[in-house]
Amino acid sequence: MKRILILALSLLIAQIAPAQQALSFRAPVVSPEINADNTVTFRYRNPKAVSVKISGDFLPDRTVADMVEGQDGVWTYTTEPLEGELYLYNFIVDGERRNDPSNMYMNRDIATWTSFFTMSAKQGDKGWYYEAHDVPHGTLSKVWYRSNTLGADRRLTVYTPAGYEKGKDKYPVLYLLHGSGGDEDAWADLGRTVQILDNLIAEGKAKPMIVVMPNGVYYNNAAPGYAVNMFQPTMRNSRSDSTVEIEQSFPDIISFIESTYRVAKGPKNRAIAGLSMGGRQSCSVSRSHPGTFGYIGMFSGVVLAETPEAEAALARQMAPKVAPSLYWIGVGSADGVKVNSLKLKEYCEKKGYPVEYYESDGGHIWRNWRVYLTIFAQKIFK
Amino acid sequence: MKRILILALSLLIAQIAPAQQALSFRAPVVSPEINADNTVTFRYRNPKAVSVKISGDFLPDRTVADMVEGQDGVWTYTTEPLEGELYLYNFIVDGERRNDPSNMYMNRDIATWTSFFTMSAKQGDKGWYYEAHDVPHGTLSKVWYRSNTLGADRRLTVYTPAGYEKGKDKYPVLYLLHGSGGDEDAWADLGRTVQILDNLIAEGKAKPMIVVMPNGVYYNNAAPGYAVNMFQPTMRNSRSDSTVEIEQSFPDIISFIESTYRVAKGPKNRAIAGLSMGGRQSCSVSRSHPGTFGYIGMFSGVVLAETPEAEAALARQMAPKVAPSLYWIGVGSADGVKVNSLKLKEYCEKKGYPVEYYESDGGHIWRNWRVYLTIFAQKIFK
Repeated sequence: MKRILILALSLLIAQIAPAQQALSFRAPVVSPEINADNTVTFRYRNPKAVSVKISGDFLPDRTVADMVEGQDGVWTYTTEPLEGELYLYNFIVDGERRNDPSNMYMNRDIATWTSFFTMSAKQGDKGWYYEAHDVPHGTLSKVWYRSNTLGADRRLTVYTPAGYEKGKDKYPVLYLLHGSGGDEDAWADLGRTVQILDNLIAEGKAKPMIVVMPNGVYYNNAAPGYAVNMFQPTMRNSRSDSTVEIEQSFPDIISFIESTYRVAKGPKNRAIAGLSMGGRQSCSVSRSHPGTFGYIGMFSGVVLAETPEAEAALARQMAPKVAPSLYWIGVGSADGVKVNSLKLKEYCEKKGYPVEYYESDGGHIWRNWRVYLTIFAQKIFK
Repeated sequence: MKRILILALSLLIAQIAPAQQALSFRAPVVSPEINADNTVTFRYRNPKAVSVKISGDFLPDRTVADMVEGQDGVWTYTTEPLEGELYLYNFIVDGERRNDPSNMYMNRDIATWTSFFTMSAKQGDKGWYYEAHDVPHGTLSKVWYRSNTLGADRRLTVYTPAGYEKGKDKYPVLYLLHGSGGDEDAWADLGRTVQILDNLIAEGKAKPMIVVMPNGVYYNNAAPGYAVNMFQPTMRNSRSDSTVEIEQSFPDIISFIESTYRVAKGPKNRAIAGLSMGGRQSCSVSRSHPGTFGYIGMFSGVVLAETPEAEAALARQMAPKVAPSLYWIGVGSADGVKVNSLKLKEYCEKKGYPVEYYESDGGHIWRNWRVYLTIFAQKIFK
């Protein structure tokens, strides 16, 4: 048995593409290693390096820390005990950023890949929701629809909850919008939408729902690899006025979803939320289609104008014409767009809309947007 | 307008997670750049490096080539004119393998990420099929099913052709199996199944079909991130006897698919094919469920035993009990498993089965498996 395996491996390795060059018979470096006391050890083998540092969002104030070289040329760093979370990190090798070559877990944010790991310090904490558990799982689909408004076939991501395929129920729909430079992959990959929804629904904390994650950059139809060949997304590609086209073409998405899936209709069964640019879009789409969405979420919504007066005018324009069941605003205390979130909250309160404002630590980061999704998903369709 | 953008960008960049550290205001390095004459230029900025080489499957005999450093610390290399293809490559920086930091296109093969690019020298050549074009697009879904045989919920990937959602037709099904260490993501990511099928169907060269890509490692239920947390796949994880469990549990998959999708039934509407370990599984599953599959494809099928006699016995065991409409065998001329492919061909011929044997250049690599899928998909359900 062992001989067969060794023979098979030798045959395969001898013929393998360059993809596999990293395979080697040196003792493998394990990194990251989550220790029993909730500390995490990182290891990186490079005897030639003069300086290796680690940058990660588990470090205080997101500074960098030095890694220490051992006799074997393996550099190590061990954190303090960490709370449950999805953490991002990278190494800095003689001044050059690089991901952890021992960790296959990487996320793409726009055009940048970053190593990550998840840990759950205990069941039920926020890191726990970002991991896959032995609960009923929903389906994640990449689907194309026709936007007659934009004259294009466009791609979107659809989460249908566990039981959708075999059941007959109709489900409410959350439309969930990404930020500047993102695409229809962002919420599922960086936002852990599937894991969060699977876990919340299994616990009975969120209603079973369909989540639709469209591509919110109107002149780009799909994520890299599924649209123009070798297209390189950048934040700059998302023109700030793309909101207008997204507003005008949004009914194409709703109409496709409601004619393709078993969907409960009406504002009580429709929510829209988005992060950053998508937060602004969730505001403007809900305003330009009054009465369509019963629940609106603005996660770190970017509302920027050149003067304070123009900013205030923009914020007012974005409030809905018809009172929703809930206007939920989440923002980080260190986020530069906090001022706009507060203005929108004030405006909604003056109009008598049911508004909830949630302020977390930190800034304009995915760590916050996962938290906001986890909270918002529990508040809608109830 | 420009001021708004700059303000927005400054605000965002100032607060961004470590993920975004690579952002910088140095002139961006463009790499790879596909030139008008079908040569490709790679660039890599690292003024501190002493030696930078490039390894890629476009180099003769997969050797490495030196990159040359310019005044600006940017190392470059330009290829000969290349034919259309999906190419893999990486840099070797002072002896250490690393991917191209300027290229966000990467593929994961088991636990190794590798930079890649696609190019089509002209419409219709094989590289053209691996790219997304403006044709009707199918849907790609990640779906969970219950395997009562294995006592587990398991994940699989389903491609449904363009028009599936809105139509009423029933479709034939190709079951497409990955190799050792792979998972249900492999064929869609590395195999470019979606692009190949979209393009072949649009050209009328393949029948519209559903493609089901299960997870073929019986004790692993899903790809990394969707199963056990921080699970690290290795080739060694795929025990060579997993074939038995896959054989026994395969009816769970067929039954789920045929009760969930609009599927045409019967052997004329069922094909099974796989690469490497999956090639052996396509043989053994079709043999242990005689009359189920009308079309069988073995792509570089691994059939290994300790003695030539045992090998021959294995090859015989793997031929189907009921003659299929087509037994298609593809293998590379430099592949160590070629001998087994030839034995199986001989055995099928003796039994009078309709067998086709296709030998390509090269060895046990994805470049061949994409070609085999492109050919096989045109031969089935006709």
